[in-house]
Amino acid sequence: MTTPDYRPAEIHAPYLLFLGDIEDSVSAKMARAVVTWRPDKAVGQLRMTGSTVSVGIEDLSIAEAVARGARTLVIGVANSGGKLPGHWRDVIVEAIRHGMDVASGMHQRLTAIEGVNELARDKGVTLHDIRHSHPPLEVGNGERRQGTRVLTVGTDCSLGKMFSSLAIQRGLEEAGVRARFRATGQCGVLVAGEGVAIDAVIADFIAGAVEWLSPAGDDDQWDIIEGQGSLFHPAYAGVSLGLLHGAQPDWLVMCHELGRPHMRHLPGRPMPEMSACIEANLWAARVTNPDVRLAGFSVNTSNVDEETARRELKTLEERFGVPATDPIRFGIAPIVHALTGGRT
Amino acid sequence: MTTPDYRPAEIHAPYLLFLGDIEDSVSAKMARAVVTWRPDKAVGQLRMTGSTVSVGIEDLSIAEAVARGARTLVIGVANSGGKLPGHWRDVIVEAIRHGMDVASGMHQRLTAIEGVNELARDKGVTLHDIRHSHPPLEVGNGERRQGTRVLTVGTDCSLGKMFSSLAIQRGLEEAGVRARFRATGQCGVLVAGEGVAIDAVIADFIAGAVEWLSPAGDDDQWDIIEGQGSLFHPAYAGVSLGLLHGAQPDWLVMCHELGRPHMRHLPGRPMPEMSACIEANLWAARVTNPDVRLAGFSVNTSNVDEETARRELKTLEERFGVPATDPIRFGIAPIVHALTGGRT
Repeated sequence: MTTPDYRPAEIHAPYLLFLGDIEDSVSAKMARAVVTWRPDKAVGQLRMTGSTVSVGIEDLSIAEAVARGARTLVIGVANSGGKLPGHWRDVIVEAIRHGMDVASGMHQRLTAIEGVNELARDKGVTLHDIRHSHPPLEVGNGERRQGTRVLTVGTDCSLGKMFSSLAIQRGLEEAGVRARFRATGQCGVLVAGEGVAIDAVIADFIAGAVEWLSPAGDDDQWDIIEGQGSLFHPAYAGVSLGLLHGAQPDWLVMCHELGRPHMRHLPGRPMPEMSACIEANLWAARVTNPDVRLAGFSVNTSNVDEETARRELKTLEERFGVPATDPIRFGIAPIVHALTGGRT
Repeated sequence: MTTPDYRPAEIHAPYLLFLGDIEDSVSAKMARAVVTWRPDKAVGQLRMTGSTVSVGIEDLSIAEAVARGARTLVIGVANSGGKLPGHWRDVIVEAIRHGMDVASGMHQRLTAIEGVNELARDKGVTLHDIRHSHPPLEVGNGERRQGTRVLTVGTDCSLGKMFSSLAIQRGLEEAGVRARFRATGQCGVLVAGEGVAIDAVIADFIAGAVEWLSPAGDDDQWDIIEGQGSLFHPAYAGVSLGLLHGAQPDWLVMCHELGRPHMRHLPGRPMPEMSACIEANLWAARVTNPDVRLAGFSVNTSNVDEETARRELKTLEERFGVPATDPIRFGIAPIVHALTGGRT
């Protein structure tokens, strides 16, 4: 299955980050990714109500943002199911009327919103449906590829795999390693300007798309591949497994959040036990790379105080014999150190 | 993501089964499924060369088939990657010119073939792209559902999961159990007249689509769900895992082929070890159904003589404590017996 209309994402900055009326902080991860990793790209945020989540930058109307040079309205939200709420339409329409491009990481296409396609054509603006920009798709073959690959995996979804991947990439680069970030989610694609939203490809091609995303490279080329979901999440594990096989990682970094009460969006479903989660990921990864190893833990500890965080990380380190860190609170250095065998 | 154009498949029989010029017998599984399970639907086969695989029914030209009442040209082939070879176009065009509908289970849409869409419209015929008929898609939630579910899983793809599922469904029905076959592949959909080609849905919705396909039912309702791929196949394992989670099976039936030299399409990649394969499938299934059990083995023994087949099946039975049979050679009764707890 080829997609002849494929082209790399070229989403023009500066962005105005649209947060709709979401009140669930985790759903704002797309906007937050831009603010964290490419703050120069965001001119402001647009929130529909006073109780809408903020990503901590200036609130601007569309007219104000345009006056400051904003070129693209970015739907900064990733909700479960990927549907655009109908009452967001007016904002999208207003942005197009002001001549802005619009970028979305939802499954539902911008062009599926009534009248939007026609209006965009009239105004000569571009609609970016990040989840629908694919490379030509092929099924995977599992053949070993040259180069070194690091994949972030997790106990659940939405707990820092993209952040950890970007931090590892930056840390390796600072240590003199040729490392690239390979984006597999709509936030990552927005930050990196390229990649594949892997949860949006046809199921048969999950592994093949990741093989395309991280092809054979030189011996000293490192690809830091953004993981998705969890082998234990009943909605998304298929994506996680196909991604794991396609990535054929040399190293896994296990991402986790302390104090998360249950699997995301599934009250009553407990988080997986850590040793079972590590075992399952290593087992699955060995299907395409028998030499895979666990490099360490990247843990979001923001739910607990610093003393508790240090104690919990130490417990993980003692239990599994690899470093554990919170990349925001304590930095990514221990993981980078483990990956480079102590060279940094 | 809703697909408002969804409608159940209504593919008009009789079929003319088109085999192109394929010489790999396994690829003819779509045509063979019809001949085996709905022989009344097939008026004949159309092969492009003398060395093309035959499914053992009469060779007919398009004109001959039409004269005998054929209404649909069925592309009876499922190849890796799902692309329609360009040199098959003339046959498809000729069928449409003769007023036949066309049905395909390829990923590549019939409408993507140059000129075909226009011609079909002119002639008033219907193009069925089985892999693109989806229900409204939602992400899965993993909640327990009433009813009893049997899922066929396997050491590899293309080794009899659909056949085994249909045989089990028929066996249960004959034993007085209310059992439905739930199709997840293009062949199964063609045989059943409904279902979802699960490898063709967007990756995020694999498990959710299976939850839709086998919703909560009465206590005495059995769904026999057709499995796909293998947790050990580096191209397709993501589909297999999402399907396993969405199916939340009470029973697994492990499908296998004796003497298969390597994983399908991947010379050099050995078949998984059986106990590891069982363990992986049971482990993964427990994520949505902690009570899942292995019912038995459904093994294609056609590569070996009968004595060897009996010996190998007996070895499996002794090793794992559940029945093992070849449904073609020895019948499905041992599995049905195990599923019904000896009531049959």
